[in-house]
Amino acid sequence: MTARTTADSMLVAFDADDTLWHNERMFTDTQERFRELLLRYCDEEVIEQRLYETEIRNLSHYGYGVKAFTLSMVETALDLTQGAVSGTEVRSILALGQEMLRAPVELLDGVAEVIPRLASRYRLMVITKGDLMDQETKVARSGLGDYFDYVEVVSRKDRDTYERVLNTHGGDPASFVMVGNSVRSDILPVAEMGAVAVHIPYHTTWVHEEVTDEALDGVPFTRLDTIAEVPAFLRGLSGDA
Amino acid sequence: MTARTTADSMLVAFDADDTLWHNERMFTDTQERFRELLLRYCDEEVIEQRLYETEIRNLSHYGYGVKAFTLSMVETALDLTQGAVSGTEVRSILALGQEMLRAPVELLDGVAEVIPRLASRYRLMVITKGDLMDQETKVARSGLGDYFDYVEVVSRKDRDTYERVLNTHGGDPASFVMVGNSVRSDILPVAEMGAVAVHIPYHTTWVHEEVTDEALDGVPFTRLDTIAEVPAFLRGLSGDA
Repeated sequence: MTARTTADSMLVAFDADDTLWHNERMFTDTQERFRELLLRYCDEEVIEQRLYETEIRNLSHYGYGVKAFTLSMVETALDLTQGAVSGTEVRSILALGQEMLRAPVELLDGVAEVIPRLASRYRLMVITKGDLMDQETKVARSGLGDYFDYVEVVSRKDRDTYERVLNTHGGDPASFVMVGNSVRSDILPVAEMGAVAVHIPYHTTWVHEEVTDEALDGVPFTRLDTIAEVPAFLRGLSGDA
Repeated sequence: MTARTTADSMLVAFDADDTLWHNERMFTDTQERFRELLLRYCDEEVIEQRLYETEIRNLSHYGYGVKAFTLSMVETALDLTQGAVSGTEVRSILALGQEMLRAPVELLDGVAEVIPRLASRYRLMVITKGDLMDQETKVARSGLGDYFDYVEVVSRKDRDTYERVLNTHGGDPASFVMVGNSVRSDILPVAEMGAVAVHIPYHTTWVHEEVTDEALDGVPFTRLDTIAEVPAFLRGLSGDA
């Protein structure tokens, strides 16, 4: 890579949930309230386990996001109570989902400073899974919308998806950088296609997104502690002064 | 427009639901079954009206699609029964939604012949509202996926959205054609930006998508009876032999 051309042609993409703003802890909080709601019917561990199984089973037709999660909570409540869950309890579950959709967008430390700074130098985009409308309104509510050239909400993050997105926006793997917290979604498929993958771990990861250490053997990627390190990393990558 | 260049540079977009495949009748059928389910609590008209109000109220945070519709059915059932709806009934509502997601994709007459034929001459795309994953799997299950260069699932269809989509795919209004069944979503914003809007009415339209005749005063658009007329229309437009 040579300096100026590269900074100009570089396309830097960020995952959204737990990379730009907090998300998993909202799901964790909601799950806790869901367990409390059903505690008179069964044990916490059983509730947690059954909800997770329901989510995974529904992933292929519901996809990701808050609406899918809400429907899975209702289904789990019906299953665990053999249909005895009350109308009031079902209403509480719907309310949990609606609260999640209305929750304020809380940026991770450093994001509010780093993104505008990067936007003045590189083409930026968001690539995220989830509900289309939910993710779009979160980008808007985050106050960062104007800094991103493109926002792509996708139904899965595999190599095919990344290649399609790059193709659409006139990028190529040699000048593409993906920054995210999920090894499975943000790192492995990106490294596989020969682009630059930057992992910034979040303190909790949804079980479904976890991968074993062996999956990372031989995979070229960079791990940074916080988004505040991204500007310096990109300057190194592009040979920028 | 001059002939060859235009056919080559033309980008022809299709709405999906009720333009390529049947959709509204599936919602209508499901609503009928939903009303039957709640008939022991209240009148059909009340159920229908309340469901519609709930859908509209939820549109801003749930968006379009089957998951949103399912959640609105559950909420309506709770409202209309003052929470007395049974677990079995709630389970039936969830099942109605899951059936919709798994329902076979039934193409409208002519679509299976016309789309492959057009694909050999023009760049084609789908622009549709709805659940991201639901719409993507419907494109795949329709058997038409390979004929479309791009599939864009969007959260709303206004002029801004169309301009963003065109910008992304290197199209411009002068060589863009949108074909769809909704005056509000497929015709008005497209005509407004100076592109070609082709209206193919479907026999039923969701109340929310209906517009008054006055809204169409002075709006330049073409109305065709079926998709089978689209190839000839496009040849006329591009001066193609």
